[in-house]
Amino acid sequence: MLTTMKLSQTFVPTLREVPADAVIVSHRLMMRAAMLRKLANGLFAYLPLGLRSFRKVENIIRQEMDAIGALEIKPTVVVPGEIWKESGRWDTMGEGMLRVKNRLGGDFVVSPTAEEAFTALVRDELASYRQLPLTLYQINTKYRDEIRPRYGVMRGREFVMKDAYSYHTDEKSLDASYQAMGKAYRRIFKRCGLTVIPVRADTGAMGGTGSEEFMVESEIGDNTLILCKACDYAANVEKAACKADYGLPVAPGSGAAIEKIATPGVRTIDELCEFLKTGPATFIKTLVYRAVNVELDLGDAPGCARLERKAAAPGAPKTYPEAFFAVAIRGDLDVNETKLAALLKASEVALAADADVERLTGAPLGFAGPVGLTGLPVVADESVRAMADGVTGALAKDLHYAHVAYGRDFTAWLTADLRTVKAGDICTQCGGELYEKKGNELGHIFKLGSKYTASMNVTYLDVDGKTQTPTMGCYGIGVDRTLASIIEEHHDDDGIRWPMSVAPYHVLVIPIKYDGAVKGAADQLVAELEEKGVEVLLDDRDERPGVKFKDADLIGIPLRVVVGDKNLPNVEIKRRGEKDSRLVPQTEAGLVLADIVLSELAESIVGRN
Amino acid sequence: MLTTMKLSQTFVPTLREVPADAVIVSHRLMMRAAMLRKLANGLFAYLPLGLRSFRKVENIIRQEMDAIGALEIKPTVVVPGEIWKESGRWDTMGEGMLRVKNRLGGDFVVSPTAEEAFTALVRDELASYRQLPLTLYQINTKYRDEIRPRYGVMRGREFVMKDAYSYHTDEKSLDASYQAMGKAYRRIFKRCGLTVIPVRADTGAMGGTGSEEFMVESEIGDNTLILCKACDYAANVEKAACKADYGLPVAPGSGAAIEKIATPGVRTIDELCEFLKTGPATFIKTLVYRAVNVELDLGDAPGCARLERKAAAPGAPKTYPEAFFAVAIRGDLDVNETKLAALLKASEVALAADADVERLTGAPLGFAGPVGLTGLPVVADESVRAMADGVTGALAKDLHYAHVAYGRDFTAWLTADLRTVKAGDICTQCGGELYEKKGNELGHIFKLGSKYTASMNVTYLDVDGKTQTPTMGCYGIGVDRTLASIIEEHHDDDGIRWPMSVAPYHVLVIPIKYDGAVKGAADQLVAELEEKGVEVLLDDRDERPGVKFKDADLIGIPLRVVVGDKNLPNVEIKRRGEKDSRLVPQTEAGLVLADIVLSELAESIVGRN
Repeated sequence: MLTTMKLSQTFVPTLREVPADAVIVSHRLMMRAAMLRKLANGLFAYLPLGLRSFRKVENIIRQEMDAIGALEIKPTVVVPGEIWKESGRWDTMGEGMLRVKNRLGGDFVVSPTAEEAFTALVRDELASYRQLPLTLYQINTKYRDEIRPRYGVMRGREFVMKDAYSYHTDEKSLDASYQAMGKAYRRIFKRCGLTVIPVRADTGAMGGTGSEEFMVESEIGDNTLILCKACDYAANVEKAACKADYGLPVAPGSGAAIEKIATPGVRTIDELCEFLKTGPATFIKTLVYRAVNVELDLGDAPGCARLERKAAAPGAPKTYPEAFFAVAIRGDLDVNETKLAALLKASEVALAADADVERLTGAPLGFAGPVGLTGLPVVADESVRAMADGVTGALAKDLHYAHVAYGRDFTAWLTADLRTVKAGDICTQCGGELYEKKGNELGHIFKLGSKYTASMNVTYLDVDGKTQTPTMGCYGIGVDRTLASIIEEHHDDDGIRWPMSVAPYHVLVIPIKYDGAVKGAADQLVAELEEKGVEVLLDDRDERPGVKFKDADLIGIPLRVVVGDKNLPNVEIKRRGEKDSRLVPQTEAGLVLADIVLSELAESIVGRN
Repeated sequence: MLTTMKLSQTFVPTLREVPADAVIVSHRLMMRAAMLRKLANGLFAYLPLGLRSFRKVENIIRQEMDAIGALEIKPTVVVPGEIWKESGRWDTMGEGMLRVKNRLGGDFVVSPTAEEAFTALVRDELASYRQLPLTLYQINTKYRDEIRPRYGVMRGREFVMKDAYSYHTDEKSLDASYQAMGKAYRRIFKRCGLTVIPVRADTGAMGGTGSEEFMVESEIGDNTLILCKACDYAANVEKAACKADYGLPVAPGSGAAIEKIATPGVRTIDELCEFLKTGPATFIKTLVYRAVNVELDLGDAPGCARLERKAAAPGAPKTYPEAFFAVAIRGDLDVNETKLAALLKASEVALAADADVERLTGAPLGFAGPVGLTGLPVVADESVRAMADGVTGALAKDLHYAHVAYGRDFTAWLTADLRTVKAGDICTQCGGELYEKKGNELGHIFKLGSKYTASMNVTYLDVDGKTQTPTMGCYGIGVDRTLASIIEEHHDDDGIRWPMSVAPYHVLVIPIKYDGAVKGAADQLVAELEEKGVEVLLDDRDERPGVKFKDADLIGIPLRVVVGDKNLPNVEIKRRGEKDSRLVPQTEAGLVLADIVLSELAESIVGRN
């Protein structure tokens, strides 16, 4: 990258108008500041200014990866479908993966991620435990065939991802690399000027393997985060744990016996509340789920006697291809499908079709309930176990049960924490109150275990000469999304306010008129800054000062120097975002600016260890 | 990129065996030196060592592009099929272009080149002549669906290309950018240590627009080059011009009248030579060609009265969808189909099917000839015009004509230079003798004119406010192929011999045993070199010196330093390729090595202007 550039010599077609389809601020500003142009829905081209910041984000990531000993390689973007078939993901990745047939009829994939490609490479080279641990990464093009790409590069189809994969002899070694990655990610986002919320999933229901997402707050975020007002607890709502004993109304227990009541034409919880003049927390809601590839043993589960376990491929774990479950939960709560899938060890869970519900419960829709249900296993949320006087469907048209008590009138095949945490719930960690935020995931680190190395048959000889399967971790960061998030966090009404570390240039020099003494002074200052390693953009255009200042605010270079006849031999220095500028003798300006630039760049790197 | 690396900490699985499918030296050495691994046929992954050199080639290209004012941008790799339909290349690109349907049924292309993407971007931004000239480039992934990928990255399916596109108000501006690009290309290849043969096409039959290919000699090259022993003439055989009057035997002219001779069962030139006991230069060979999309006016051409011209799209030039031509050429010469297509302004020419030949000539195969031929236009090579006593087919079974003279017995509808130049021919430039070489194209610069800007409807307002179409140039370099070519030119029997400018590291430090005083001395030297900006690879492995030396020769780092007990306080310094090493005091080694490295790096950059 050149360190100095004249604005007339580069290509920065800024826009006054906001493109109609740009609804979030980073998309609007990236278009207006001419960082980006749209090629097609979800496909964007970076223009020179955008590409400079993009490369800086890439380089921060590269430096931090190199610093922890990860090794950069470059596989292809288009990879053979064969390796996706080996891992089994050819079938499970869904339509988001762009599949291509080449002219010879071979299957190929435009990589959405690269566990398979890296694992295939490592498989061919790995012989001995001495070669492990090994962490490889790439910073390369990815493609996901989003149905509804939007928000500019925040959710585009093609993007650049840093993806790293590590291979280990044991869990301890994997954990060491995983921890080092987590620290590197914190440094990367800090250097980019980003406030991230690291969200651990291993504290909750998912247990075990370990995974951490790095989120930024965003009103248009894909994820709902659950945060604690009192401590540093943060979780993705999909995985957030519930305090086991929290919020369960220790029901007074009327002592009344279970009773059938007529509820003509009443099907939904709302209708029931209206009919019985009570709140939803009184009800035991019963939902029928269909689960696919269930690994959990259903040998003693009601209604499952005839199910058979099969292995999808030789060596793969045996699973039930399809099974149904009745999930009971208190009426005011929602089932968390991620928790349910984890409990069942299923690859997918979804509400069953109406016909299946009626067939399995023997009742019309709206009258399912756990009492007397024998056609399928009942899985109850902890909230249900605490209920001693509930209302629930009686498995027959226009009938419900009242005064239902768990343990007396029915028991579940399994009970577990299955509910979705929400704002106002209590933190499992400290008892504080939880609240919600929308967030976007910028990075994710994940202990994969032997999922890929086993299915793709990767082995090495251990110290005793015995064949072993390595364990594996994967670690991704979306470069485009990180860049857009920096703008989301650093902007004002007038435009971008770049952190020094990722600004396209450090200093913008604006001669009021690029001519005569002003030109001389501006050129001299640019030369001086260039020599000190400061990156300078010179607005040499023949435009009115107002236009230049507006563009300056929009583009958001951290430091602005105005050189004009009126002030010479002084020049005006202003930080982007400051209201007032200060006069500095032209002869000192280079030193003053270089000082600020270099100290801010150094600051962003401090704290690596 | 880190400047120092321990071999035990990186991933360099060198091979003693040569992979069976690696037939050229660069492929063999890139595999053996662990620069590269194969993911699938034509798809390769660069490992850490290979990627370092790859990035250095990219950076040399980037620096030279930036130096001439080209601006780097980053469009996507996957682009909408729509823009390829606009340019018309959706239909003409053939099966080498990888087409994809996305989940919504939209057409997409995995870019094989990017005239369309750049032109679409420029179209949206271009308003005024003041924005021109504009040169944009990318260094990005490309894909060509080769049927038979081979020779490693020399002819792979996925590769990285630097492709630049320039836009201009006039021919003079285009020529200035074209010339600057040509100079930049010469500097790039020189800095990479490559001997390229620049091959101009604008001196020859193609005329006009201007194009220059940058070739390297290669026994497996795709191209045949025609070079002059006496001057700097160099041409691709596809386009090489013939000296108009050269080699035409000013036939004595027997004066004898044309005569029909019986040639029972004689069909080929060889059979005819045998039968008449003479050489092939005596014959007028007549070949029937089928041409597609012929733009040349055939209004007065024999047999073409019924052909109609049509425009493929509104605004596109009108062409004859199909037309046939009899091409007459001296029996010892070959028709150059590129010249023929250029003459006819056809998108494609190929020998006609046997049935068409018989239908159009009214004679069995082997008896075509220009005398009395009326069913299709005769196009004659210049060689035929000079023949006064030739033999040719008589348009009837087992009959030929003897004593045929051009101008007396027949004339052609068109005459032109249509023959393929070959070794031994005479240079059009200086009269020297021509010879042949096989070559691979590393780069290509090309004046496109308004082909894309017109079909894609790009306009700007000129100084008078009138709407104009810009003219355009395109300029490509294959990065992978350039890297492989460097190895083709710089190696010996033991391995690679990197030029300093593109070596993965500058210095390889080999401690005989990485322990005690030797380790101390090696570490100190590495630290000293690092401080001087020299890139060092340290072979800290616990391997026998023989293994380390063999790997050193294979990997080919330019400078090798051996640190051993025996020689301390001296160390052994050797250039890769030198037979003997020299002893240098350890305290001076850093300075000596840094001097060599920095002077060689500087040298590679000299001559930029």
